[in-house]
Amino acid sequence: MSKKQSRPESAGRFAYEGLDRVIHEKARLSIVTSLATHPGGLLFNDLKDLCALTDGNLSRHLHILAEAGLIQIWKGFKDNRPQTMCVLTEEGRKRFIEYITVLENIVTDAVSAEKVAEEPKVTKGWSPA
Amino acid sequence: MSKKQSRPESAGRFAYEGLDRVIHEKARLSIVTSLATHPGGLLFNDLKDLCALTDGNLSRHLHILAEAGLIQIWKGFKDNRPQTMCVLTEEGRKRFIEYITVLENIVTDAVSAEKVAEEPKVTKGWSPA
Repeated sequence: MSKKQSRPESAGRFAYEGLDRVIHEKARLSIVTSLATHPGGLLFNDLKDLCALTDGNLSRHLHILAEAGLIQIWKGFKDNRPQTMCVLTEEGRKRFIEYITVLENIVTDAVSAEKVAEEPKVTKGWSPA
Repeated sequence: MSKKQSRPESAGRFAYEGLDRVIHEKARLSIVTSLATHPGGLLFNDLKDLCALTDGNLSRHLHILAEAGLIQIWKGFKDNRPQTMCVLTEEGRKRFIEYITVLENIVTDAVSAEKVAEEPKVTKGWSPA
């Protein structure tokens, strides 16, 4: 047997490949989670309030999510006023669930980290970069 | 009493303000979680493997994390070869724990979303944007 190598547990162990970049962006994560918790859809202004976004920012991110097929944007009327309604698609719901599974893995890794109490490897002979 | 408004539960309910942008970026989240689970620090090449990042990308994100005070970068020698060691700072650990608390809230929101079975509000009179 060759001498033990101090290689990490496995390549890509913390790469979190399933962390969908379309959903991961902070504003879009707010939007998608809001819509996931409101399967009947949300009006533009309600979504804006829930996510604390400006009109421009919300519009921009809704467009990106619609282009990616995660949401549908509908135009219609409520109380005789034109309104925009946003709804998560089936594809959006599926990808959100996959994304949340990765978040759960990260939380699990983080919780395990709190239990680790390793000795620092940086001792004499090392200096700040 | 005025008639009931269909306003959402509360402004900013899904804004996730605590979602620290320095940590939230996908590559940096990999790096910080790797370091949190290895409190003794990780050598540059081991971190590169664990996060599946290129040299250039890892260097760039390590610099951002160090500038933000979340990690320390040390230069030293291992087996007579110059090495770079990265360690999470106390501040980094504190902010990572705060960040993970927000992720846990998102997961909780998402799990509650799976239980909701609201009727779609988009009916006749609405059309795709």
